[in-house]
Amino acid sequence: MSDAYSELFERLGEAATLYSVGGLLGWDQETMMPERGAAFRARELALLGRIAHERVTHPRVGELLSQCEADAQVMSDRDAAANVRELRRDYDRARKIPADLVAEMNETSSLALQAWKEAREQSDFSKFEPWLEKQLGLARRKAECYGVPDGGEQYDALLEDYEPGMTSAEIERLFGPLRESLTPLIAEIAAADYRPSDAPHRAKISIDKQKEFNLFVLKRLGFDMGAGRFDVSVHPFSSGVAPGDTRITTRYREDHFADALGSTMHEAGHGLYEQGLPKAERWGQPLCEPVGLGIHESQSRMWENQVGRSRAFWTWALPEAQRMLGDALSDCTVDSMYEAANIVEPHLIRVESDEATYNLHIMLRFDLERALLRGDLPVADLPGAWNERIKRDLGLDVPSHALGCLQDIHWAMGSIGYLPTYTLGNLFSAQFFEAVQRALPNLDADMTRGEFGGLLQWLRENIHARGRRDSADALCSELSGEPLSHHALMRHLDGKLRPVYRL
Amino acid sequence: MSDAYSELFERLGEAATLYSVGGLLGWDQETMMPERGAAFRARELALLGRIAHERVTHPRVGELLSQCEADAQVMSDRDAAANVRELRRDYDRARKIPADLVAEMNETSSLALQAWKEAREQSDFSKFEPWLEKQLGLARRKAECYGVPDGGEQYDALLEDYEPGMTSAEIERLFGPLRESLTPLIAEIAAADYRPSDAPHRAKISIDKQKEFNLFVLKRLGFDMGAGRFDVSVHPFSSGVAPGDTRITTRYREDHFADALGSTMHEAGHGLYEQGLPKAERWGQPLCEPVGLGIHESQSRMWENQVGRSRAFWTWALPEAQRMLGDALSDCTVDSMYEAANIVEPHLIRVESDEATYNLHIMLRFDLERALLRGDLPVADLPGAWNERIKRDLGLDVPSHALGCLQDIHWAMGSIGYLPTYTLGNLFSAQFFEAVQRALPNLDADMTRGEFGGLLQWLRENIHARGRRDSADALCSELSGEPLSHHALMRHLDGKLRPVYRL
Repeated sequence: MSDAYSELFERLGEAATLYSVGGLLGWDQETMMPERGAAFRARELALLGRIAHERVTHPRVGELLSQCEADAQVMSDRDAAANVRELRRDYDRARKIPADLVAEMNETSSLALQAWKEAREQSDFSKFEPWLEKQLGLARRKAECYGVPDGGEQYDALLEDYEPGMTSAEIERLFGPLRESLTPLIAEIAAADYRPSDAPHRAKISIDKQKEFNLFVLKRLGFDMGAGRFDVSVHPFSSGVAPGDTRITTRYREDHFADALGSTMHEAGHGLYEQGLPKAERWGQPLCEPVGLGIHESQSRMWENQVGRSRAFWTWALPEAQRMLGDALSDCTVDSMYEAANIVEPHLIRVESDEATYNLHIMLRFDLERALLRGDLPVADLPGAWNERIKRDLGLDVPSHALGCLQDIHWAMGSIGYLPTYTLGNLFSAQFFEAVQRALPNLDADMTRGEFGGLLQWLRENIHARGRRDSADALCSELSGEPLSHHALMRHLDGKLRPVYRL
Repeated sequence: MSDAYSELFERLGEAATLYSVGGLLGWDQETMMPERGAAFRARELALLGRIAHERVTHPRVGELLSQCEADAQVMSDRDAAANVRELRRDYDRARKIPADLVAEMNETSSLALQAWKEAREQSDFSKFEPWLEKQLGLARRKAECYGVPDGGEQYDALLEDYEPGMTSAEIERLFGPLRESLTPLIAEIAAADYRPSDAPHRAKISIDKQKEFNLFVLKRLGFDMGAGRFDVSVHPFSSGVAPGDTRITTRYREDHFADALGSTMHEAGHGLYEQGLPKAERWGQPLCEPVGLGIHESQSRMWENQVGRSRAFWTWALPEAQRMLGDALSDCTVDSMYEAANIVEPHLIRVESDEATYNLHIMLRFDLERALLRGDLPVADLPGAWNERIKRDLGLDVPSHALGCLQDIHWAMGSIGYLPTYTLGNLFSAQFFEAVQRALPNLDADMTRGEFGGLLQWLRENIHARGRRDSADALCSELSGEPLSHHALMRHLDGKLRPVYRL
C-alpha cells in the first residue's frame, strides 16, 4: 500500500495504543486499584485521552486521508478502502468537537457521576437533577457540533457515536412492532397457570466452587485464557485491553449461582468478539475494531440467551454443574434448570430483568431520553414520567428513585443514545442465531455435548474477523438475509416461552 | 511561587503521570497480564516512554528552568530551590542523550533480555555474549554523552543514573574496608563449632495460610492497604505506581515460610518509602521522588534485616506465626527462629544469600562490571573471571553459568552501575538504624510487642517526607552524624552474628 496509507495507520496505531493503555487503566480501576488511587487515576485517564485525541484529530491525519482517498490503488483494495472510509467518518466527527467541549464533557461526567452515586444512595433525585440538566445541555451542544442530519433530530447525531448508521426514526420503526408483539406475550405469561420455580438457580453454592465452574464454562465456550483474564468486579464488564489481552469480569452471589453464570456468559460473548477482532494484524485500523454497540451486544446476548438459556446448553451443563458444585444441585433436572432460566417476571431493575421484559425497560429509556433531549420532558418531571411508564408497561409501583430513574449510570456519564443499543443487540442476536442454526444443522446436538467450537468459528469468520468492514445493517442483511426487525427475536421468545409456560 | 515555576511543574506533572502509567503497566505485566499480551505491552511501554521523554526534554522546560533560576523569590525558598536544583540536574542529563540512542537502548534491552533468558535456561553463555558486548558498547556511548567527570571514569557517569553523587572511587573506598572486616568474620563463622539449624524456617505451611500471615505482618509494619496492593509474582518487587497507589509483591514456597516473609518485609520497606513520599502534594516535583537507589534499598534492608532478623521482632512474631500458621511451628522457640534468621552460609546465588556474604556478591559484580566497561576484562573471559572470584571469595565451585554469571538480570537490561547500590543500601540502613535506636530508646521493647509505629514515623519524618531535598550523602551525615562507611554495618553484623555463632 502507499506511503500515505502506511504513515496514516502508523500514526493511528499510536493513538490506538494510548486508548488501549486507557482501557487497561479502566480495567485496573474496577478490579485491582486501591481506594486511594481513584483521584489520580482520573487524572491519568484524562491525560491519556487528551494526548490520544490530539493525535486522532491532527491535521496531518486529514492530509494523509485525502491522499489515500485520491489514490486509486488504495481505493481499489476492498480492505484498504473500508479502512479509509471508516477513518474518514471518525476523523471528520472527531474534528467537529472542539477540545474545550471534550474537556468540559469529561469534567462534567466525573462530577455528575459522583452526584449520581450520592443521589442514588440517598434515593434523592434533586441531587442529580442539575447534573442531568447540565449533561443534556452538553449533549445538545455536542449534537450541534456533529450536525443534525436532514429530517433528523439531535438525538440522531448522538446515536451515531454508539450505533453508526442508526437513526431514532429507525429505532421507532423497530421498537413499535416489537412492543406490539411483546406486550401480549408478557400478558399471557403473567396470566398463565403454570409458574416455573426459580429454586434450581437459587441453590446455595460457595463462591470458590462457583469460580471454578464459571472458569470451566468460560474456557469451554472458547475464551482463550492465554490471551485474557477472568476476574471479579461489582458490575461485570469486558474490556478488549490490547492485542492478545482481553479481560472480562463477573460477580458472585452465594444464593444465586445462575446469576454469576449468566453474567459470565454475557461477558464471554463480548470477550470472544474482542479476541476474534484481528488486532495483532491490523492495529490502528478500523478493520480490527467492533462495528458498534449493537453488534457487540449481539455477541454477549447470543451466548447469554440463545446459548445459556437453551435446553441444549443445560443438557450439557447440568451434569457438569452437579459434578463441580456438589449436592445443592442434586435434585435439579435439565427441565427444571431450563425453565428456571426462562422465567418471565417484570422487575424494577433493568439488569435484573428477563429476556422479554428487558426490552420494555429499554423502550422506556429510549422514549424518555429522547423527550428529555428535545426538551419535551422537563428534567424535573422525569421521576413522575418514569414511574408512570413503569406502572403502565410492567405493572409495578416504583418505591424509590434508586429503584427507578436513578438506577442506570448512562445519563450520569452523559451517554445519551447508548441505551437503545441493548435491544438492538437482542434483535441482531436473534437474527444471527437463526442464520447460524441454518448454517450448522447440528448446532443443537453439539451444544448438548458442550461443543461450541462450530458456533464460535461461524461468529469468528462472519462477524469478528471483519472488524468494521461492513456496517451493522449490511452485516445483518448479508448474514440473515433480511433487514433488522422484531421477527426473529419474537420467534425466539414465542418459540421458547410459550412451551415453558404451557401456552 | 512564580508563573514559570507553576508552568514548569505542571508540565513535569504530566510527564510524571505518563511514567506513572508506565509503572502500572509494568506491575500488571509481572502480576496480571496474560501471556499473549507481552508483545504489545512492550510497544505500549516504549510509546509512553517516548512521549514522556519528549516532555521532560522539551526546550520549554529549559526556558522555564532558567527563569526560575534567575528568580530570587523562587531560589530563596528552600523547597522550591531544591526542586529547581534537582530538576536542572535531570534536565541537563536527559538532554544529553539523543532520542535515537534512547530508542536503540530500549530495543537492545528488549532483545538482550530475551537472549539472556534463553542463555540462562540453557546455561549457555555464548548466547548472551554478543548481547552483553552490545550493551557495554551502548553503555560506553551513554557515558560519553553524559560526559566523564574530571579524574573519573565512564562508570561514574553511569552510576549517576542510579546513585546521584556517588563515584566508583568512593565505592572502592567504602567496599575495601568492608571487605577487610567481612572476610575474617565470615571465615570465623565458617569455622565455628556451633551451627544454628534452618529447620524452624523450613516448616511446611500452606500458601493460603502464609498469605494471610504475610498480609497481617505487612499491615502491622504500617503498609496502608487502602493505598496499596500486595500480590504474588515470580520475582518480588515494589512499585510506587501513583499517588495513593503503591503495590508490592512477594512469592511463596510451601517448604520455606521465612523466605516469603523476608521478601514481604523487604518489599514492604520499599513500599513504605513510596507511601511516605509526598506525591499527592508535590506531584511532578523532585521533592516527592526517592533520593536514589541506595536510599531506597536502605529502607527495604532495614525492615528485612534490622527489624526482620532481630530477636525483638521474633519475640512478637513467633506467637503470631504459631497462632496463624498452625502446628508446624509448635516446636519452635524465639531463639531458634532468631538463629535460623541469621545463618551465614555462602551461596552461589546473590538473592539467596545471607546478610553478610551478600555483600561479597556485590563487590564481585562491581569489580567485574567496571572491568568489563573499561575493556580490561574481555566479555569472553567473564565466566572464567566470575567462577574464579566465587571460588576465592565464597569458596564455592560454580557448576553452571546459570548459577554463575548469568544469574542476574541487570546487565541484560543494560543497567551497568546499578548493582553496587544494593550494598550501599546495606551501609545506609545500618547507619540509619543506629540513629533510630538513639532517637527511640524504647524501639527494641516496642518491637517485641509488634509496635513499629515509632520507627515508621521516624523514617517518614527524616527520610520519606523529604523526597530529593537532601542528597544521600547529606541525609546520611545529618541523620547518623557521620559520613557513609562500613563501621555501622560491621557493628550490626559483629554484634549479632558473633553471639549467634558463639564466637
